[in-house]
Amino acid sequence: MRVLVPFDASDPNTRLAPVLDDRAAFAEAMLADVLAAIRNGDHEPVVLATESVDVDARVRVDDRPLSPAVNAALAEATLPVAVVMSDLPLVGADTIRRLVETAGEVVLAPGLGGGTNALVVRDSGFRVDYHGGSYRTHRQRARECDLTHATVDSFRLALDVDTPDDLGEVLLHGEGQAAAWLREAGFELDESDGRATALRRSDS
Amino acid sequence: MRVLVPFDASDPNTRLAPVLDDRAAFAEAMLADVLAAIRNGDHEPVVLATESVDVDARVRVDDRPLSPAVNAALAEATLPVAVVMSDLPLVGADTIRRLVETAGEVVLAPGLGGGTNALVVRDSGFRVDYHGGSYRTHRQRARECDLTHATVDSFRLALDVDTPDDLGEVLLHGEGQAAAWLREAGFELDESDGRATALRRSDS
Repeated sequence: MRVLVPFDASDPNTRLAPVLDDRAAFAEAMLADVLAAIRNGDHEPVVLATESVDVDARVRVDDRPLSPAVNAALAEATLPVAVVMSDLPLVGADTIRRLVETAGEVVLAPGLGGGTNALVVRDSGFRVDYHGGSYRTHRQRARECDLTHATVDSFRLALDVDTPDDLGEVLLHGEGQAAAWLREAGFELDESDGRATALRRSDS
Repeated sequence: MRVLVPFDASDPNTRLAPVLDDRAAFAEAMLADVLAAIRNGDHEPVVLATESVDVDARVRVDDRPLSPAVNAALAEATLPVAVVMSDLPLVGADTIRRLVETAGEVVLAPGLGGGTNALVVRDSGFRVDYHGGSYRTHRQRARECDLTHATVDSFRLALDVDTPDDLGEVLLHGEGQAAAWLREAGFELDESDGRATALRRSDS
């Protein structure tokens, strides 16, 4: 299946600014993990980027905001098509297979906090709206369009890296470039207060 | 399969104190959801409580801390046995079936933050230690005991209700008594800032 991976190439992961010097490099490491997972799951990634990026995958450039850019790609795509966010570094080939093999005209993977981290669209009438609590919006839209819909129950798909708190999960569960990048940048897993946290060696 | 459900009957969910007047009633609603999920999944719940509680299930009372209480129950149990935390109100019958049907002498479901929210034990040599980052500890122990181990990738098992932030997820995804309890207590889902939050009507 073709899997679109939206990627904000201009200003990624703004909420990580307080802890990461080079957010762009980390964002690219996460993107590389997602692309590898899709490919290892025997599917075909297409990066949907806000500007040209140098990655090992087909790139479609669209500088509009996320929802219109995804909807334009959906309108032109041969269905079924999947959309998987680029900030999901825990996703592996098995996760992608579970997503793609879940039956339903619309398949949704909720993110922590009510977003939609991944979806599969098998009906040409469905359009996305990532604004606000998009998981609820998308479920509602599927109902309004009278489409069968299902939810994928996955921690690896739910964990989008958004805030510094999420980096501990990457160090604990990640096996790809994003986890390696954090380690090289000096972060290590700290569980001394009972909660997985990414601590920079120089901070400790 | 027998499923042990540890339950702190004396002082549950301390971190919810700032927002919940009656933490005990909410803890019991979450416990009821977990017990219903286990039963609807055709398994047998046994509550492992710190003191006597009035619930619709067999109760084993053990006032020791979590790890020794669970280990004593494991030592006496006919294997396989599962242990599922009581503060997982998103868990349904399907989630329990996925957990129980995952192969492995030790099966682990990580919680957000590095804990172990559920596990299945099929070897009498395995003992738990919930202190600190227990997911990593349990994986390490399984390796040391030369046991096959697997991880269940489930958002519903990962989401333990610990802080006020987690209540938004309960309102968004919960379908049982815990979600109903929150609604009756005046909470409603607010996604106006783009993140699922539980807001009390009187606060808004």
